[in-house]
Amino acid sequence: MWHYAPPLRDMRFVIDEVLQAPAAWADMPVFDGLDGETAAEVLAQAGRFAAEVLAPLNGPGDLAGCRWRDGEVTTPAGFAAAYRAFVEGGWPALACDPDCGGQGLPQLLNAALYEMLAAANHAWTMYPGLLHGAYECLHAHATGDLRERYLAKVTSGEWLSTMCLTEAHAGSDLGLLRTRAEPNGDGSYAVNGQKIFISGGEHDLTDNIVHLVLARLRGAPEGTKGLSLLLVPKWLPDGARNAVHCDAIEKKMGLKGSATCTMRFEGATGWLLGEAHRGLSAMFLMMNAARLHVGLQGLGHLEVSTQNALRQATERVQSRAPRRPAGAEAAPADAVIWHPAIRRTLWTLQARAEGGRVLAYWAAQALDEAAAHPDEAVRAAANDRAALLTPVVKSLLTELGHAGADQALGVWGGHGYIHEMGIEQVVRDSRIAMIYEGTNEIQAIDLLLRKVLPDGGVRLGQLLDWADAQAEGAAQATRVRLGLQAVRDCAAGLVSGAEVDAEWPYRAADDFLRALGEALLACAWARSEAAARAALAGGAPDRAFYEAKLQRAQFQANYLAGELPRCLMAVERARAELPFLPAL
Amino acid sequence: MWHYAPPLRDMRFVIDEVLQAPAAWADMPVFDGLDGETAAEVLAQAGRFAAEVLAPLNGPGDLAGCRWRDGEVTTPAGFAAAYRAFVEGGWPALACDPDCGGQGLPQLLNAALYEMLAAANHAWTMYPGLLHGAYECLHAHATGDLRERYLAKVTSGEWLSTMCLTEAHAGSDLGLLRTRAEPNGDGSYAVNGQKIFISGGEHDLTDNIVHLVLARLRGAPEGTKGLSLLLVPKWLPDGARNAVHCDAIEKKMGLKGSATCTMRFEGATGWLLGEAHRGLSAMFLMMNAARLHVGLQGLGHLEVSTQNALRQATERVQSRAPRRPAGAEAAPADAVIWHPAIRRTLWTLQARAEGGRVLAYWAAQALDEAAAHPDEAVRAAANDRAALLTPVVKSLLTELGHAGADQALGVWGGHGYIHEMGIEQVVRDSRIAMIYEGTNEIQAIDLLLRKVLPDGGVRLGQLLDWADAQAEGAAQATRVRLGLQAVRDCAAGLVSGAEVDAEWPYRAADDFLRALGEALLACAWARSEAAARAALAGGAPDRAFYEAKLQRAQFQANYLAGELPRCLMAVERARAELPFLPAL
Repeated sequence: MWHYAPPLRDMRFVIDEVLQAPAAWADMPVFDGLDGETAAEVLAQAGRFAAEVLAPLNGPGDLAGCRWRDGEVTTPAGFAAAYRAFVEGGWPALACDPDCGGQGLPQLLNAALYEMLAAANHAWTMYPGLLHGAYECLHAHATGDLRERYLAKVTSGEWLSTMCLTEAHAGSDLGLLRTRAEPNGDGSYAVNGQKIFISGGEHDLTDNIVHLVLARLRGAPEGTKGLSLLLVPKWLPDGARNAVHCDAIEKKMGLKGSATCTMRFEGATGWLLGEAHRGLSAMFLMMNAARLHVGLQGLGHLEVSTQNALRQATERVQSRAPRRPAGAEAAPADAVIWHPAIRRTLWTLQARAEGGRVLAYWAAQALDEAAAHPDEAVRAAANDRAALLTPVVKSLLTELGHAGADQALGVWGGHGYIHEMGIEQVVRDSRIAMIYEGTNEIQAIDLLLRKVLPDGGVRLGQLLDWADAQAEGAAQATRVRLGLQAVRDCAAGLVSGAEVDAEWPYRAADDFLRALGEALLACAWARSEAAARAALAGGAPDRAFYEAKLQRAQFQANYLAGELPRCLMAVERARAELPFLPAL
Repeated sequence: MWHYAPPLRDMRFVIDEVLQAPAAWADMPVFDGLDGETAAEVLAQAGRFAAEVLAPLNGPGDLAGCRWRDGEVTTPAGFAAAYRAFVEGGWPALACDPDCGGQGLPQLLNAALYEMLAAANHAWTMYPGLLHGAYECLHAHATGDLRERYLAKVTSGEWLSTMCLTEAHAGSDLGLLRTRAEPNGDGSYAVNGQKIFISGGEHDLTDNIVHLVLARLRGAPEGTKGLSLLLVPKWLPDGARNAVHCDAIEKKMGLKGSATCTMRFEGATGWLLGEAHRGLSAMFLMMNAARLHVGLQGLGHLEVSTQNALRQATERVQSRAPRRPAGAEAAPADAVIWHPAIRRTLWTLQARAEGGRVLAYWAAQALDEAAAHPDEAVRAAANDRAALLTPVVKSLLTELGHAGADQALGVWGGHGYIHEMGIEQVVRDSRIAMIYEGTNEIQAIDLLLRKVLPDGGVRLGQLLDWADAQAEGAAQATRVRLGLQAVRDCAAGLVSGAEVDAEWPYRAADDFLRALGEALLACAWARSEAAARAALAGGAPDRAFYEAKLQRAQFQANYLAGELPRCLMAVERARAELPFLPAL
């Protein structure tokens, strides 16, 4: 049956031995006293919550879905109780400022927490999924009464929050938004408009819901420079119900336990968060973390699919394999894990999941350093690294998560198509992560057009230098460095080629992002291999764990290293013009 | 909104100009008098049925699903009436022997019919989907009373049929089957056992259901050589209800309008079809056609996804594109079809759909020639070609169908995740085609291990020679021929490499199949390009159609030709050992 075992051993390996995070924490005063043991204990507790409380609700939650009636939403059985336990455990405040009631732990641990939540129950995780972003927003922008009333409640998770961005005609393009806010004369605003695809716009998990709404003040400029951010609570401070209503919930491909709401603001009372017309930059404050978290969902999908496929492959017996287990001569058939095609799928899934974990945690560590390192130069370098890693993590890991779940489904044969087995739900749940929080195509444009080309590849070069240093000491260092160099050359070609054909980078952006991602994954494996080798040389007790790492690093080099040249070649191929399509 | 426009123009191009089927029909006496006009008229009628009757039932059928109650199954509203119309139209008998009430038309036209049915409503198409196979089986093996009672009813579709193969522990590996049949002494048998995943095992479309059941007679050998095929009707000739019961239907990822049944045979009365213990070879008779039809489902998914994505991309306005339509300077945003990433997706989908159609119809034409050509040598060559093309069509087109639908979903942005839009259903419906009728991994083994390696690549070489001749006269002929040669070399490498490492071909089989498929797709495009060029040179009136073909052939050469070297490289990479996975 479907199960989720938090990958605590691998998380500890990545955090302690690959990232050497405890040493990094020692350099950052805000994490004073945090060591690997404490971090591991926090994650073990989080893992228990994910595995014991959330995972059992995942399949039933998908079948039951959310129910809408007269503007009220009922979440699947158990979701509300699980959320109360989550708040009581203090999990929402894990990486929040201790001055506001937070625990002050690194984003890196919050990343590991959210990887586990999403792996266990992505639909449930949608409810607290935007909470940390809302906290960041309030922490930076809420003042006076607003701060007093809302910051602590959002930090603790007592009240959940939404991000009300999308409108029916405006998804990726927020400049088209039409929702309006008019001053009421008492410092508050009346908000009018309709928003769609609002996750957790209505639910039965918390007493109040704090909506963060992008709207346009009277006389604001057109486009994205005329958007303001307003805080609109479901219940007003005087106890009255605010004029914000959930008109419907969507029937979706997946995430059926998560209420995706159509919200109507009908003169709803709200207050400005941050400056007028600067709503988008207030919201962009939380963009890197939000995108990283979507990448972590992809990682969670990949991990849980891998675990279950591995178990299924050892249990399902079907046909004889060309190489059979010793002593099986008389058996009519073998466990499918012996079949080469299945074995290859499983190796691939494992190599992707573990390499992807290193990549995602690198990004989380960069966010911590960018926010908390005492040295300004280190902060600036980490900030640049995070800016480049974030779109790669978001796009690559959500793609690997969805494709990995889809590939894993095949391990069950026809049974994989049946809901009861669990895997088809992951295929459905994982698809949206490639779209929301900026589609993967937009991530690719963000990376190449906004972050690589404008400075002629300088910041990219710094990231590649940093990655190169990570490969130090690995048996595969030379090959990995050649890959990094090839990405550098590819970027240089795009910089000069864009002068001749300004559209080429747009046509090539997806493949460039994927190329950088593959080069970094190779680098993550080189780093993991070097760490595993060092542990074995140092006489670490858990030899089987490290030897399996070395085998997977070898698999990566043998089977997956072809992905990078493929992507680089595709960037070159995209030099060819793409004519406008003939009319319908 | 979701729509389906039968691609009649492209079908006619492929059938008349690429395959030059009318000339081929003239060589086969059984198709005497059939010309391109007549064929086009048949397909136009079929297209109307698919678009007007079936397509409107597709989305509602998915939401309603099938209902099971006390062993009875209710299909979604409209399914039964549509089936009656299908039978009244004579569609089940399209490619059946006129002596049995069939229309005697080529498999090629039946292929085009089933492409349209699957594109319009895959779930509904599951009910008649196995009918032609059942007809083939009865036509070849039913004698005496059995033939008298069942052949005409199955030919006309008045009674639907099932294939009862899978059991809970035996999917891909039929050798493990346990269902038993004992002689009753009157020529009939008592069948006992449980079958799962039986499509249309119970439903409300026809009065009777004719189950074809694989079972083991007493004293039969173990494994696949001990299986017999029995005909077990739901209602016995004397009007009594037979002891075959539907115990449950599955909750599946997709195809919710198709009842996937758990069937219990409790001393059910059946009659032997063909010889005892030769059930599998009786069933394999219809294997090529059945596998081709699954490939056609993939083609249908690809086609309908492409059409709808194209329309959506012209209607959805979002952000400014780097190159904008003339006169759009003042508009705040452009139709997404102008965005390079979306444009590239659409070109890819179109190139895959149209190239895939040529490939699938080549296989159908080979089946016709293998069955009906008067020259034995031509029949034998066509039979070999069909044997090699079939696993490629099944595996490649179902993969492209599912991946294509999944990629198309992105054109809708977040809206693609909503049921109402239609595309997410295609993603779900299409996944099973990669699994049933022999998983795609089994197709790859069938191709490489059973059909290429055993004769040292001789038959493959003949297929490649044939393909090479297809490229004759194309501007891209040289490049395409180099690709075919590379596949030939790859196969030669596998033949000799297998002597050293017998497992290598198993590890490389998926990539080898894909490589052959990509080489054939390139060839299909070269052929299409040459045909379009000839039409333009001949002053064909429909210039826009042919010019668009040439543009897509160019896109194929520019953007998709990298797939073949990628697959060939992957075959090489698979030389590396794949160790057994460390224990859980």
